Amino acid sequence: MAKYDIHYTLTVALAHQSYPIYIGENALSDGDHLKKHVASDKLLIVTNKTIAPLYLKSLQTAFTGKQCDVVILPDGEVYKNQHSLALIYDALIECNHHRDTTLIALGGGVIGDITGFAASTYNRGVPFIQIPTTLLAQVDASVGGKTALNHEKGKNLIGTFYQPKAVFIDIPLLKTLPKRELCSGFAEIIKYGLLMGGALLKHIENVLDQDLTQLAPKEWSFLIADCCQVKSQFVREDEREQGSRALLNLGHTFAHALEAYTHYKRWHHGEAVSMGLYCALILSHQLGFIEKKWVDFVKALLIKADLPWQLPSDTDNEALYRLMLTDKKVKHNRICFILLRRLGDAFLTDTVSKEDVLKALCLAKEWEVS
Amino acid sequence: MAKYDIHYTLTVALAHQSYPIYIGENALSDGDHLKKHVASDKLLIVTNKTIAPLYLKSLQTAFTGKQCDVVILPDGEVYKNQHSLALIYDALIECNHHRDTTLIALGGGVIGDITGFAASTYNRGVPFIQIPTTLLAQVDASVGGKTALNHEKGKNLIGTFYQPKAVFIDIPLLKTLPKRELCSGFAEIIKYGLLMGGALLKHIENVLDQDLTQLAPKEWSFLIADCCQVKSQFVREDEREQGSRALLNLGHTFAHALEAYTHYKRWHHGEAVSMGLYCALILSHQLGFIEKKWVDFVKALLIKADLPWQLPSDTDNEALYRLMLTDKKVKHNRICFILLRRLGDAFLTDTVSKEDVLKALCLAKEWEVS
Repeated sequence: MAKYDIHYTLTVALAHQSYPIYIGENALSDGDHLKKHVASDKLLIVTNKTIAPLYLKSLQTAFTGKQCDVVILPDGEVYKNQHSLALIYDALIECNHHRDTTLIALGGGVIGDITGFAASTYNRGVPFIQIPTTLLAQVDASVGGKTALNHEKGKNLIGTFYQPKAVFIDIPLLKTLPKRELCSGFAEIIKYGLLMGGALLKHIENVLDQDLTQLAPKEWSFLIADCCQVKSQFVREDEREQGSRALLNLGHTFAHALEAYTHYKRWHHGEAVSMGLYCALILSHQLGFIEKKWVDFVKALLIKADLPWQLPSDTDNEALYRLMLTDKKVKHNRICFILLRRLGDAFLTDTVSKEDVLKALCLAKEWEVS
Repeated sequence: MAKYDIHYTLTVALAHQSYPIYIGENALSDGDHLKKHVASDKLLIVTNKTIAPLYLKSLQTAFTGKQCDVVILPDGEVYKNQHSLALIYDALIECNHHRDTTLIALGGGVIGDITGFAASTYNRGVPFIQIPTTLLAQVDASVGGKTALNHEKGKNLIGTFYQPKAVFIDIPLLKTLPKRELCSGFAEIIKYGLLMGGALLKHIENVLDQDLTQLAPKEWSFLIADCCQVKSQFVREDEREQGSRALLNLGHTFAHALEAYTHYKRWHHGEAVSMGLYCALILSHQLGFIEKKWVDFVKALLIKADLPWQLPSDTDNEALYRLMLTDKKVKHNRICFILLRRLGDAFLTDTVSKEDVLKALCLAKEWEVS
């Protein structure tokens, strides 16, 4: 059994709890290391039909000697719902799991979100571990303790704040990731770059100048560690999103509406975030906060990452706006937007008029690549 | 509008949060006092078909000027399920509630548990208030932050730890409570007496010598405050039930199995707790921890409170045992029991053999009133 070659260890230090994020190679085959974080005799792995044939067996082998049960869900955002949740609860009950169990999320953001939600609500809370298998989950979804289910009326409307006991990031898993999903993950990476500016943004630009599919494992680790560091800093400052953590939602007010509008079927989350980032930049410019050249700069980054940026001309702006009104960040019926004063300087505002939002949506359909 | 005549104010002081329990008269009509604890412009009252005709209007009137939406669930433990939860989520979404809302649980333990669960999981957590309308909820369920749903395989298997912002206890609500429910609440009161012994047990004995339906409001307040004080002490020491808080489950391992066995239909929760307390006493005696006279003493208390104590002869002991194995407190496939060394001295043990449990269940059917 290969040892986990850990390139970076970050610690998410919260007020009442702290947990490690390990980033490296061979996480799934190092039973000794995994077992250090799974004290229980029983565990339940939650994964999906795409991931199971690739990595499930290796993970099960690592847990030889423990009662290792499995739930395999269909793959996709549309399955992040009450029905999948019920399958997890049923497995836990049927296999006699109690508070002395551990749930392991082996998959992307959907698997991580739903497994975390199940862990936070089964028997009033049992431990869980994140093993993110997509770039998006590695840089974003697996860190920070947001768990969620979608409601037919909106994304992530049901959820909890519940931290994992540990996050194991395994770079070689990215090798089997379809290019489209790799690009999708890059949307969140670009988001961190826009939030922080400076060295991180430079780092991202440099990476985007290379062929992503040829990037060395240690290069990936470096980039992912940089992103996780930013995320954990925001989470540490504001675990329950009373204020500053909301900045991590740059582009997401638009993205969630776009996903709901297309019933989570047309775009990957990162693709919606990419268009959302572009909308947020346009809105920031339109309201006089940021120069046009930075809108174009961001557009160019998104294009380099093979991401969609322009809103399709057939989207109904009024419908998108109505969907934004169901966003969790709505307060007193006002939508909260995250805008940029400049790269590296984001802020929250709830004073954007409906007219301005609709205008930004129009512009996001029309503008040409400069 | 009558002012809330507050007899007692207790504070549940937890590590990261603290909230008041008010005990007195006219809580529902004192809009000024209620509004002090409901900062939001919107609120959702969750109640049931029995309570709504009695008290809903008064509470709505108190919130005049705010958007006050309502969900009215059917009455009963069988409705503490995913379907009722979905009704609450749907109402919140349809009426455009976001994180800036407050949920109000107006009802007994079922309403409190499910409303608390909804509050803890909607938009990753919104504030909620408890207005318990049954004696059982006033002395037990509304305090301590346990939220829950039943799963068809077992009671409260789904839930969270999530504290209310405040608890408003209104003694006059007990006037409309059926005698059977009043007695049911007394089972939890007797449980506190057995856990604490001494002055509290004496206090309870004295109250049971009177006609409960004639007890003066201030007498009720005194008794309820005593119980809430005990509960909040246990919760303060161990909010997430890692250890000592489990003692509050005296009698409940048996009670939950009895309820599941009869599909939550035959007994009120307190009645099942009453039989469970009796089983716990028998088991404590059988294992040599407590003298027979204390088993009889407790039986006499339960009888005074008009509560069932003897297990019906037709219950299947093996089936009850199997149900106990799904209890949340099961660890390494061992059921955890709370036993008494003497009145006022409870302890946890997971070393009781199946044989001893089955023997206790037999005895609980056979023993005569001494």
